Amino acid sequence: MTWRVGILGATGAVGQKMIQGLAAHPWFRIAELAASERSSGRTYADAVRWMQETAIPDGVGELEVKPASPVLECDFVLSALDSSVAGPIEQDFARAGYPVISNTRNHRMDEDVPLVIPEVNPDHLNLIPRQKERRGFANGYLVTNPNCSTVGLAMALKPLDDAFGVAEVFVVTMQALSGAGYPGVASLDAMENVIPFISGEEEKMQTEPRKILGRLAQNSVQFADFKISAQCNRVPVIDGHLESVSIKLKKRASEAEVSEALASFSGEPQKLGLPTAPAHPILVSSEADRPQPRRDRDAGRGMSVSVGRIRPCPLLDFKFTVLVHNTIRGAAGAAILNAELLADRGLLPQRSQVGAEVAARKHV
Amino acid sequence: MTWRVGILGATGAVGQKMIQGLAAHPWFRIAELAASERSSGRTYADAVRWMQETAIPDGVGELEVKPASPVLECDFVLSALDSSVAGPIEQDFARAGYPVISNTRNHRMDEDVPLVIPEVNPDHLNLIPRQKERRGFANGYLVTNPNCSTVGLAMALKPLDDAFGVAEVFVVTMQALSGAGYPGVASLDAMENVIPFISGEEEKMQTEPRKILGRLAQNSVQFADFKISAQCNRVPVIDGHLESVSIKLKKRASEAEVSEALASFSGEPQKLGLPTAPAHPILVSSEADRPQPRRDRDAGRGMSVSVGRIRPCPLLDFKFTVLVHNTIRGAAGAAILNAELLADRGLLPQRSQVGAEVAARKHV
Amino acid sequence: MTWRVGILGATGAVGQKMIQGLAAHPWFRIAELAASERSSGRTYADAVRWMQETAIPDGVGELEVKPASPVLECDFVLSALDSSVAGPIEQDFARAGYPVISNTRNHRMDEDVPLVIPEVNPDHLNLIPRQKERRGFANGYLVTNPNCSTVGLAMALKPLDDAFGVAEVFVVTMQALSGAGYPGVASLDAMENVIPFISGEEEKMQTEPRKILGRLAQNSVQFADFKISAQCNRVPVIDGHLESVSIKLKKRASEAEVSEALASFSGEPQKLGLPTAPAHPILVSSEADRPQPRRDRDAGRGMSVSVGRIRPCPLLDFKFTVLVHNTIRGAAGAAILNAELLADRGLLPQRSQVGAEVAARKHV
Amino acid sequence: MTWRVGILGATGAVGQKMIQGLAAHPWFRIAELAASERSSGRTYADAVRWMQETAIPDGVGELEVKPASPVLECDFVLSALDSSVAGPIEQDFARAGYPVISNTRNHRMDEDVPLVIPEVNPDHLNLIPRQKERRGFANGYLVTNPNCSTVGLAMALKPLDDAFGVAEVFVVTMQALSGAGYPGVASLDAMENVIPFISGEEEKMQTEPRKILGRLAQNSVQFADFKISAQCNRVPVIDGHLESVSIKLKKRASEAEVSEALASFSGEPQKLGLPTAPAHPILVSSEADRPQPRRDRDAGRGMSVSVGRIRPCPLLDFKFTVLVHNTIRGAAGAAILNAELLADRGLLPQRSQVGAEVAARKHV
Repeated sequence: MTWRVGILGATGAVGQKMIQGLAAHPWFRIAELAASERSSGRTYADAVRWMQETAIPDGVGELEVKPASPVLECDFVLSALDSSVAGPIEQDFARAGYPVISNTRNHRMDEDVPLVIPEVNPDHLNLIPRQKERRGFANGYLVTNPNCSTVGLAMALKPLDDAFGVAEVFVVTMQALSGAGYPGVASLDAMENVIPFISGEEEKMQTEPRKILGRLAQNSVQFADFKISAQCNRVPVIDGHLESVSIKLKKRASEAEVSEALASFSGEPQKLGLPTAPAHPILVSSEADRPQPRRDRDAGRGMSVSVGRIRPCPLLDFKFTVLVHNTIRGAAGAAILNAELLADRGLLPQRSQVGAEVAARKHV
Repeated sequence: MTWRVGILGATGAVGQKMIQGLAAHPWFRIAELAASERSSGRTYADAVRWMQETAIPDGVGELEVKPASPVLECDFVLSALDSSVAGPIEQDFARAGYPVISNTRNHRMDEDVPLVIPEVNPDHLNLIPRQKERRGFANGYLVTNPNCSTVGLAMALKPLDDAFGVAEVFVVTMQALSGAGYPGVASLDAMENVIPFISGEEEKMQTEPRKILGRLAQNSVQFADFKISAQCNRVPVIDGHLESVSIKLKKRASEAEVSEALASFSGEPQKLGLPTAPAHPILVSSEADRPQPRRDRDAGRGMSVSVGRIRPCPLLDFKFTVLVHNTIRGAAGAAILNAELLADRGLLPQRSQVGAEVAARKHV
Repeated sequence: MTWRVGILGATGAVGQKMIQGLAAHPWFRIAELAASERSSGRTYADAVRWMQETAIPDGVGELEVKPASPVLECDFVLSALDSSVAGPIEQDFARAGYPVISNTRNHRMDEDVPLVIPEVNPDHLNLIPRQKERRGFANGYLVTNPNCSTVGLAMALKPLDDAFGVAEVFVVTMQALSGAGYPGVASLDAMENVIPFISGEEEKMQTEPRKILGRLAQNSVQFADFKISAQCNRVPVIDGHLESVSIKLKKRASEAEVSEALASFSGEPQKLGLPTAPAHPILVSSEADRPQPRRDRDAGRGMSVSVGRIRPCPLLDFKFTVLVHNTIRGAAGAAILNAELLADRGLLPQRSQVGAEVAARKHV
Repeated sequence: MTWRVGILGATGAVGQKMIQGLAAHPWFRIAELAASERSSGRTYADAVRWMQETAIPDGVGELEVKPASPVLECDFVLSALDSSVAGPIEQDFARAGYPVISNTRNHRMDEDVPLVIPEVNPDHLNLIPRQKERRGFANGYLVTNPNCSTVGLAMALKPLDDAFGVAEVFVVTMQALSGAGYPGVASLDAMENVIPFISGEEEKMQTEPRKILGRLAQNSVQFADFKISAQCNRVPVIDGHLESVSIKLKKRASEAEVSEALASFSGEPQKLGLPTAPAHPILVSSEADRPQPRRDRDAGRGMSVSVGRIRPCPLLDFKFTVLVHNTIRGAAGAAILNAELLADRGLLPQRSQVGAEVAARKHV
């Protein structure tokens, strides 16, 4: 069984990574590519400034880029739209009957929209029925994944919260340039330098993990009660966000227990054997100077989060270093894994249904 | 009045910066250069792998490099020795009658050795008489400056501790490559990467500031009672350590008061007009994305610490970013400023005294 | 005696370097700053995204940015305008009576416009009378300096051409990011990469040096008859263009003679003691691995060209490496040195003349 | 059929790449690892500082590192030894009956040793009988691959030499840091800089291609008669040597013909379908700003050479840009492809023969 995927924002950095991630996907086939007006009507190969180290997958370069509005001939859409336009477009697609699996921030904090990391809070997908009812969506709906730096942090916090309870979190990020898109950061700003500011990032890191680790109760998410303080820096690295984290736990734990909780973490994607799921969602490094962005970001084909340097913290309880591949596990891969989970749960509509619905709409 | 300086470890990275810093110094004249056996007997120009962007100052290249042991024809020594050998050598020089003003870590935490930043704790120099008595030094003594990343942190903490009391400190550093000396970090490790480990660095940052901000009482330093948690990372930057800091204060303070306390900070070097003292030991940036290593490290000829992004912290009280030029304010310039303070206080022996003493020793 | 300078394109990368270069100039005082419509009416500090490592010079930040069109209250203008608009604007200023000393490419190859490096072809300024006559300029005129990578090459070729005759030139450049302006090259393109293409650059390098080293005869420049083949690459360096050069000479020369010709090169700026002139326009490195951009670009305050690795070439006669600071000797400093030469020659109109002329024009 | 491989110099940068390249090899199985005395006796995982982005292949980390001297239990050896020791060791192995396929420079220019790129000069393997005879080798022999920067150049020259005859070659390289091994270039030298010197590199580039493209006649190689001028620079890139090349041809050719000759190039590895052979040994880029090291080095799993920017040269005939992955096609992959060619030709002895021979030697 195969689903036809439409990609919104297909020419951007995350859109390209989605295309790469779907190149040989066993379930999903790229059927439609949509982007801004400027690109639409051209072939993808012509419209895109392809930035990846591998070539455009076979058959994709020839696709015609469509405008980012319904109707597209596909079963669901992955959205990598720019947040300046994503809000209403995603809403339109959901209303038109498409499951919208989005990487953009616009609907993440909407009360009725699941903000999901499949290993962490798959149960939040239970918000979907309420969302459809509340927004009057017949078949479509919105599901989001978190901000790139949040994904790494939330995944590292989950097993610790389950085992010991997380009480306080201190995090300083050293984020890669690809997180700013293309052209993004000017080389004259980035080279041999660190920029101690990323617009809106600290706010996202201080709220999103609390929703993700929140408890679903009576059709709404009760945010986790821990506090997070985040400081975000941009460093001259291409891919891979590194985070220096310190946490306070509610229950006493030894360093070995913390390490074991992280290393043994496994979730629904691993149980279900979803195609994009890494064998180990968290890899614990034993070497003193790891994880490092350039050497560890590709672990688990970019889907494993690496944690290292677990040690006591003089102020809180434990300190450690987290690494997440920001454009794979932190963006394109996150959305694809969400789509796989939805497919497995039967939440992606059958193709004929969409076809029928589309046909119906066309004939109105 | 001019003092003759001897530089121990003159061929290394910090030794070179000391030579640069003394090139046109109004008080100090480079008289002797000492280094390892391998270099001694050669001219400095021949022995050194000069790494600076300006040429070797006139007259220095021709000096003969001596072994790093007494007797040297100078009034005091600046030590930039490698810590693997510095301990006994510095002790020997002090015993031989030389004030030893050291950048190395070996004696920093010795109970009777002042660990001094002239703007922060000039009164700790009062440990010297006790040190001389205890160690049986006639004229010589040991004075140290802190680790490069400590200097930036301790300077930023001082005015806040004076005004509001510092209770807790969280710091994550992004440290420059020059901090590891030469050849130091391999380019294959450094490029497009971050290394989340610097041997011994976190321990220094967690203890040194507590000595520096400690109170001198009854001939010993009572360590400051705040706790520090440090995480140290190496980033691909040539010079300039950036630090993401969060602090808890003992007294309530507004963001404006914190900013004002930092911006108005001034110390004894400024009052005395010491040659190397910057007009402003701390510069507060108002721009959202500053300080940045490449753009701000040279402020105050590398002797000003830059602080920016002062804002509330959800966990503690305030967060901010600190930048210190690690090889100037954090090393060579720190030692030179200590020497200037000692000279001003009359703690550098007159030249004839040393001369006489040296002569006496020679004739034993 | 002091001249009032107006800077066209004052907010751009080269404009900023001009302001830096004039900060403490003994002859020239920044009187007017002009830029695009978007900036005009605002103070310079407000309009500019200042990118330099030193602060905006005192008194400059408060100046009001004017539109880039006459009348400006100044004795001459330095132009750092973008080449997309520079052509007619510079022409307008010249027509309005201003000497226009331009860094932009638009008029460089105009038959009646001098393309000048003061050490190389100061006599080309004799084109000015013909230019004024031909274009109907009363007092104003146009003088240009070469492209950044051309400057380094042409300066290295000049003494060799004088002594031995240059017959063929092969050059491959490794150019700094600042040459592309700001924001210029995206960090995702620049980092850990080389881009083997710079639009229009090879064409400039293959023609400009032949004009500069051409002979002025009968009021026109007879281009030098050597051929140049240039290949231009962008490398991840902030400032400093490095060039691997190979040349064929018309007369036999030894390696020592070539080296001596380069090292002893001196020109009119040195003879006249112009304020910006470096003591040595060319510095010959004897070390095997020099010049290097980061270590040698600032030689002679960025105005000396460094040449190293002089050695025989198996194909032509000699190979060597050239380094030029692209935004100082290759741009802002080049224009300022041209202005100094013009001032020294009495080719910058007296202030009252301009004043009178301006007054006259205003009352028409 | 499977051959057992021994790797000499297994812990170094190229040795690691050989291990990576053999991880899933259909013909070759890593049987023995040898390195310096310091490493021998330890497990490989313990002895090596593994620098690759993928983990040590399964089963390899547990192997015991042996001294780099016969006897090793394998059918042939790949040598990645340091050139300071490689010469006699490789000779010893050949004498002891092992085919030695070496990446080191020591025997490359020996008259009776083939210097082979399988696509370019597979016939040079016919030197082996003479070599065995001359050196008194019973079963073993020496085969070498060229220097990393030579490989890219020689592969680009081959189809042009075949079609039009190469008369003169001008090349300037921008070489990656990994070419210097580990720790290799200090980050303080490499960052934001170019080093215009690589010891011995220009000499290799000026001679090796002439042997490789030479004609085998009467049991010796008659060197190609073209002249090469090389200038070698080190740039801050991890992997991938970029080369700006200009050539003069013996026969007239159009730009299209040159491009076609390069794009259609294919050799014996492609015909034989050797496991490591790329589909296209040369890929011609049509984009104006390619090839680029970071984006194109992995083409053909690092075994394709990329050529771009083919255009006329004002001095010679054509200019173009060449990119070669220096540690794969330029080193480890080059040696492995040589081994595959030898295996295909029946020049790798059967396992039992070696076994017998080894047994025989052991019982002497």
